[in-house]
Amino acid sequence: MPHEHLAPLLIYNQSKIVLLLLDGLGGLPLEPAGLTELETANTPNMDNLARQGTLGQTIPIRPGVTPGSGPAHLSLFGFDPLVYDVGRGALSATGVGLAVNPGDIAVRGNFCTLDPQGNIIDRRAGRIPSEEAMPIVERLNQIAIPGLEIETKHVKEYRFTVVMRGAGLSHHLNDTDPQKTGVPPLPVTALDPDAEKSAGLFQQWVEQAKEILADQPAANGVTLRGFATNPQLPSFSEMYGLKAACIAVYPMYKGVSHLVGMDVIEFSGESPEDEFTALEKHWPNYDFFFVHIKKTDSKGEDGDFSGKVSVIESVDQALPKLLALNPNVLVITGDHSTPAKMRSHSWHPVPFLLSAPQLALPDVQTKFGERACAQGGLGTFHATECLPLALAHAGRLSKFGA
Amino acid sequence: MPHEHLAPLLIYNQSKIVLLLLDGLGGLPLEPAGLTELETANTPNMDNLARQGTLGQTIPIRPGVTPGSGPAHLSLFGFDPLVYDVGRGALSATGVGLAVNPGDIAVRGNFCTLDPQGNIIDRRAGRIPSEEAMPIVERLNQIAIPGLEIETKHVKEYRFTVVMRGAGLSHHLNDTDPQKTGVPPLPVTALDPDAEKSAGLFQQWVEQAKEILADQPAANGVTLRGFATNPQLPSFSEMYGLKAACIAVYPMYKGVSHLVGMDVIEFSGESPEDEFTALEKHWPNYDFFFVHIKKTDSKGEDGDFSGKVSVIESVDQALPKLLALNPNVLVITGDHSTPAKMRSHSWHPVPFLLSAPQLALPDVQTKFGERACAQGGLGTFHATECLPLALAHAGRLSKFGA
Repeated sequence: MPHEHLAPLLIYNQSKIVLLLLDGLGGLPLEPAGLTELETANTPNMDNLARQGTLGQTIPIRPGVTPGSGPAHLSLFGFDPLVYDVGRGALSATGVGLAVNPGDIAVRGNFCTLDPQGNIIDRRAGRIPSEEAMPIVERLNQIAIPGLEIETKHVKEYRFTVVMRGAGLSHHLNDTDPQKTGVPPLPVTALDPDAEKSAGLFQQWVEQAKEILADQPAANGVTLRGFATNPQLPSFSEMYGLKAACIAVYPMYKGVSHLVGMDVIEFSGESPEDEFTALEKHWPNYDFFFVHIKKTDSKGEDGDFSGKVSVIESVDQALPKLLALNPNVLVITGDHSTPAKMRSHSWHPVPFLLSAPQLALPDVQTKFGERACAQGGLGTFHATECLPLALAHAGRLSKFGA
Repeated sequence: MPHEHLAPLLIYNQSKIVLLLLDGLGGLPLEPAGLTELETANTPNMDNLARQGTLGQTIPIRPGVTPGSGPAHLSLFGFDPLVYDVGRGALSATGVGLAVNPGDIAVRGNFCTLDPQGNIIDRRAGRIPSEEAMPIVERLNQIAIPGLEIETKHVKEYRFTVVMRGAGLSHHLNDTDPQKTGVPPLPVTALDPDAEKSAGLFQQWVEQAKEILADQPAANGVTLRGFATNPQLPSFSEMYGLKAACIAVYPMYKGVSHLVGMDVIEFSGESPEDEFTALEKHWPNYDFFFVHIKKTDSKGEDGDFSGKVSVIESVDQALPKLLALNPNVLVITGDHSTPAKMRSHSWHPVPFLLSAPQLALPDVQTKFGERACAQGGLGTFHATECLPLALAHAGRLSKFGA
């Protein structure tokens, strides 16, 4: 269990902790002498919190390592991604909203193009666009194998996810992507004897998929990678003594929150105001709220610098609604950086703002931004320290040793 | 052994290193916009060292984790408390000045209140005050078991420590505190077969204690927790090539220094001047001096902000006596923070000042204080790096690799 040393120190009190995550918050200036997205944004409320609180910057995985969304979130939740290897299949499935319960097997699928001899000529089916791939994935849901419940869901372009549910399944199966062209997909084979049955079932699934896809010009084959089951991670309740809730719009973030035992709150709308309204409504029922804002990342990936600035400003404008609830601890940070300049996730350290009236030691910083955070009082630290810092500032940790 | 990579690099020279530890040095402002105790204190000598030296801040255990005194000191001495779990019994015993040599067994004891059936009705004997508990603990020193030397000493309120010395003892014994009321204390039982004899001996001790305490209204029973022996930690001499001495007033700090092989210097008086006089007297005899100032922590725990400021100022005023000895390296830091505002130890990073004429790279800071340290040239680092930094700046470490 991560942070195992915290378990005997946990104090249960009435404090409330909010982790407000702006996905892909960190950025880069467009010009060397310029400002980042966050530095450009007019954020009087966050700046006020920065003045009274403490800044810092986090390393999500290791310096220089650009995180995917799953590992970045798990790291903030306390699971070092180099230690807790949550199977890709499980992350991918929870990411598109498919439940992966203990014993269920999830796997990532790719469409590929096969020649008449069954050899792969394109491992990504010509990077078939999502709008074409989606209805094809739907057809895969026709596949039926007695005794099993099978769900298949589109992810993006040529990628999809399959979840198989039934008795006695094992995820100890090899990837079927041969990682090269000119050869057929590998058969599904068992990595240990207990997985023989599952290998046969997934191979049946592959054969039925090939029949269904036979008429497709590009996506006429499939490969499977990253067989996984529910990682049965310890929950926020076990690790941190927190009854935790997730307020997020996108399935991926609901999924990863569910994996660590958070309740996923359903609400209508998808603006920051809508999310904060949901927060307000459920305020009495939880100790910890993870509130996820997606669009900072989306705008970053679009290369839309001013769009990302606007999203940050819209969160700042909505912030008084959250602040009116008087959380004991409010952390505002990202899971990783997504500089509009790069149109992608990046490895740059992530700005981190800790607000805890009374207990935070204010540093000399007066504005929330990357350069201020790099000079902040919390220094540069691994993202897995987010929750211990929050717990301490909420008075939820007793002394270690006499 | 911690810092094992240093052993082949050690250089033995005539340099002198002083670690001047102001217990619980770190603080918090009383008002958000205010200054901390250290920032408030008028410390011209320390500020001068800050200008010429390098500042930083340390994490004693992990971010957010508030250390007890034992782990905090062990961390500064190089032992990560999450890796080197020095048994509570041993720390407690050395803390009150009882020697725990290899093979000795130390354990923490609690007075409890038993009902006529022998069930616990109060696990802390009504939090009996120290002045009442002390004479009762003295009576426990009547207990005699043939072949054993037994010492019992009061710690605080309902707590005391027992050390048993004899041949073939083992500390692999279970705690007898059932952690609840309405049941009797657990018997002492062995965790492995080699500990059977020790279990019997400690159970005899408990039975005799019950007889002696039978007339007590509240403290008529005992529970035992944290059986431990001397952890046989590697010494400062082995780890760092340093002949080390401890100058401290309180038994706890003498005890933990003794555990890492320091000579404990006896001297009269307890003011900073008295400690620096002892330092001066023993200057030719040691490479390394750990000088411990207790009252910063005591004033912090009392919630006495201005009292803590005064203690810091009194150390600063006495400092010229220490500086006249021209140590090659002087580190001024705390073991943890004890903000007067919180009246307790806290998790906040600890201010760290490294003075090493000629070899320190001065940063841009000009005053010794929490916010300056957070911006200091050494950055934020784990307390276990204190000694390697001191050794390097004393010219005591050669190059790693060609």
